[in-house]
Amino acid sequence: MRNKKYFRTNLILSLIFAALMLAGTTNSETLNSPPESSDLVAIRALLQAQQEAWNRGDIDTFMVGYWKSDRTEFVGGSGILRGWQAVLDRYRKTYPDKAAMGMMTFSDLEITMLSPDSAYILGRWRLERDKDRPGGVFTLIAKKFPEGWRIIHDHTS
Amino acid sequence: MRNKKYFRTNLILSLIFAALMLAGTTNSETLNSPPESSDLVAIRALLQAQQEAWNRGDIDTFMVGYWKSDRTEFVGGSGILRGWQAVLDRYRKTYPDKAAMGMMTFSDLEITMLSPDSAYILGRWRLERDKDRPGGVFTLIAKKFPEGWRIIHDHTS
Repeated sequence: MRNKKYFRTNLILSLIFAALMLAGTTNSETLNSPPESSDLVAIRALLQAQQEAWNRGDIDTFMVGYWKSDRTEFVGGSGILRGWQAVLDRYRKTYPDKAAMGMMTFSDLEITMLSPDSAYILGRWRLERDKDRPGGVFTLIAKKFPEGWRIIHDHTS
Repeated sequence: MRNKKYFRTNLILSLIFAALMLAGTTNSETLNSPPESSDLVAIRALLQAQQEAWNRGDIDTFMVGYWKSDRTEFVGGSGILRGWQAVLDRYRKTYPDKAAMGMMTFSDLEITMLSPDSAYILGRWRLERDKDRPGGVFTLIAKKFPEGWRIIHDHTS
């Protein structure tokens, strides 16, 4: 009898434990509670690394920021591009050399966590070049992968 | 001694149980597994309702699709607009009457679930008007609220 009672008590305690653990991982918290600071830091670092890579003319390192997948999307003036390789090809074609790349600045970054492993970033971009200063606004959607945060969707206008 | 052994066995079993339960609710599933069909249906219905409201000149009902919050964002040709009211004001100003609103068609909708309560939608819009046929691409970010799915961010170009 005693063993049975112990078993029941332990089972109830373990169910409460499981319930509490599950409650801690619910998805409904994200828009209202402050996101985990380490994710914000990681996402800011991703964009900082992209900006620095761009400004030394290193498109390959810049592209590390994008999810290396056929499902990565880039929406821009030329419509919808699909796949990491297509995004890379477009950057190489549109910005063939250091002069075309100019100096990039990302600013006014606002990161909104959508879930523990997804976020979107609203921000502005500006290129300083000899002949012009193009710029605009971007919406990035990022996911957290085992290798870190990566951009899965980029809408730049 | 026996009670102690039972306790340990039960504890181990309950931890395994808790671990399995947690594994089942992890957030890393979303990009690779098919999203719940009911959410896809609800998101498509939201956009269908917006299109129908637009096409009968009913901007108020069209606006129900957007999260009624100061944090709702619209990014378009005129930059970044913040807040549900600002989005409504822009629609009213840009499309003052039925002739300006024309007939809207959303097409090529692709919905990607980011978590159980967040998604993004890539799609195309086209207006049929007497004088022109403007159109473009949009990225919408939507969240599931108690009242249903709502657009929290719209980047249209």
